[in-house]
Order: sequence, then structure tokens, then C-alpha cells
Amino acid sequence: MSLLDDLIEAFRVLPGVGPKSAQRMAYHVLERERAGGQRLADVLAHAVETIRHCERCRDFSETDVCTICASASRDQQLLCAVESPADRLAIEQATGYRGLYFVLQGRLSPLDGIGPRELGLDLLDRRLGEGLVQELIIATNPTVEGEATAHYLAQLARAHRVRPSRLAHGVPLGGELEYVDRGTLSHAFGSRGEMP
Amino acid sequence: MSLLDDLIEAFRVLPGVGPKSAQRMAYHVLERERAGGQRLADVLAHAVETIRHCERCRDFSETDVCTICASASRDQQLLCAVESPADRLAIEQATGYRGLYFVLQGRLSPLDGIGPRELGLDLLDRRLGEGLVQELIIATNPTVEGEATAHYLAQLARAHRVRPSRLAHGVPLGGELEYVDRGTLSHAFGSRGEMP
Repeated sequence: MSLLDDLIEAFRVLPGVGPKSAQRMAYHVLERERAGGQRLADVLAHAVETIRHCERCRDFSETDVCTICASASRDQQLLCAVESPADRLAIEQATGYRGLYFVLQGRLSPLDGIGPRELGLDLLDRRLGEGLVQELIIATNPTVEGEATAHYLAQLARAHRVRPSRLAHGVPLGGELEYVDRGTLSHAFGSRGEMP
Repeated sequence: MSLLDDLIEAFRVLPGVGPKSAQRMAYHVLERERAGGQRLADVLAHAVETIRHCERCRDFSETDVCTICASASRDQQLLCAVESPADRLAIEQATGYRGLYFVLQGRLSPLDGIGPRELGLDLLDRRLGEGLVQELIIATNPTVEGEATAHYLAQLARAHRVRPSRLAHGVPLGGELEYVDRGTLSHAFGSRGEMP
């Protein structure tokens, strides 16, 4: 196997990259982006070796405690639990939220061997026990497993007299009712609120 | 800017990778594919540094002369000119062609400053002058620039008394006439052949 074949094969670890895209990536880098390719190789090697999990929130971090957890300007009374770093980033970018996060790095899924320990809930338990957090905003995904995780988290919060809250479900802004799935529409109809 | 941001940015040199995919790639590698990521970094750094162009055919090669050009079992009388290494690979995989290749690494495009020199046509000129090649199979893409390049190559071949040939154009196998573009259909109609 040639080095070029090795490179094409190596690109396939990336998500959504099949044989054709991997080949296109390899050729593209060799033809037009050697400097960028060298930089990607350097940064990737460095990141894979350096980036670990924040001791407080389990998000990715280069340091023991991530910048958000270490920030003095964030509201220590609000904690938002999300499934993944991508969800954390989405909330950070879309909302004006100024509290802290807790990244589960997954969701409860007993069949896959993912229980409370794998989600770092012992860490969360200690965190809520510190008595600083007043509200746990549960932002797990609205899937079956995400909902099960949300219920578990809500119980954990209540045990520590922390108020659990959940993101609102309903019709997406700018969406057309006709194309909203039945479960969402039914939920939105049932949870209708008075017009302000 | 954090190392994670650097990594996301670095992934964007890959073709077809926007901010969202780059972010997904970075998270995926850090969450689930650290070993694969390390391997990709190693192979990529090595490839970018090592892989250069074959002295004979301009295809990518780790050695001065690529394995195909160096092979004693390939027919030295046939030379197939393609625009890119990907085209070379496609022909190699789809056909039983046993001749040699010449990879232009582009097509004539005067407005972009790509002339005969950039396509290594001086090298091709010398190659045809050696007198070994009998037929130049021109497999440039059927685009305006590809056709212009094909005409230029055909003239070059004739100047050396080498027979130029061109891939057949027509209705793709398994295609439905209804969905074939007008140019192709018109060409296929005009070039119709007698039923065997």
C-alpha cells in the first residue's frame, strides 16, 4: 500500500467521510493545500495529545479547568446540563446565557453500558451538593434517551433542593405547522399559552 | 483562540468542509477517534512532506518515478493524458488499460494563467519526441477548457506523428434519454453508429 493510499485510508476516521471523499481530500491537500495540510497535521497531533476534559464541567479543555468554569463573570447559581460539547457551543452562541455548564458527554443508555457513572453524574452530584447552584437547566436532546436522562437529572437536582428546568418544546420559530412532526405539534398544542 | 478553535479552523482546508462539518470533525476525533486522529496527523504530515510528482508522468509519487511508469509490464506505446490524479485512478480502476499515463494537473486556462508550461507540456513534448509512443489517448474532461486542451494535445501529437485519440462521448450506459443533457444527446445522435 502506498503512502497516498495510507493517507486516503487515514481520512476515513473523520465523520461522514467515505472512500470517495477521502480520496478527494487527499488529492486536494496534495495538489493545492500542502501548507494547510501541514498545519492540520500539526494542530491535530497537538490537540489529540493536549485536549482533555475540564475537571469541573467535563467539556473539552486544554487546561485542568476550562475558561468558562474559570471565569469570574459567569453566574455560579445557574448550571446547564448538555449532552455534548457541540450542544454547549450551540447554546453559548445562540443565547445570552451567562451561567455555567455541565457536559454529560453522552446520555443514559443502559443497553450500551452508559450509566450515571459514564456521564460523570457523581461529579454533578458533588457539584450540586456544594450548595451554590440554584437552578439546573436540563438541555438534553428531546429523544427517548435524552428525556430519560432529563428525568434522572431532575431527580438528582431535587434531592439537593436545586430547581430543575427544561428547555421549552414546541413549534420551531419560522417553521410551518404543516411540516412540524406530529409529536411536536401535539405537545405544542397541549402546552399552549395565553397570548400576551 | 483556543486549540480547539485552531483545530476546527484547520479542518477547513479540506474540500467541502464548512464551519459546521469542521466542528463535527474536531469533536468526533476528540470524543471517539483519538488514535485515528493521531494516525491521520502522522500520515498527513509525512505525505505532505514526501509525496511529489513523478518525473515521467507528473502523477503523485513517493519516488522519482511512480510505480506505473517504472513497471516493465505496461505498454510503452500507449500514453493516456488526463487532467488529474483522480481521473488517472478512475481510468485505472474502470478499464483494463495497460499503457502509461500523463497527468496534466490541470487544463489550459489562459485567464487563470494556466498555459502549456503549467501543464508540463514541454515534458510531454520531449516524451512524444522519444518516438516510443504510438497513440496519445486524450482523456481530458468534456468541458470547454478540457476540449481546448484536447485540441492542443492533438496538435502536439500530430507534430510528432503520434496518433491522437479521444474518449467516446455519448449517452451514458444505464442512463435514460429523457434525463440526458441536450448537448450530449445531440452529440450522441449525430455520432450514431450502425447496429452490430
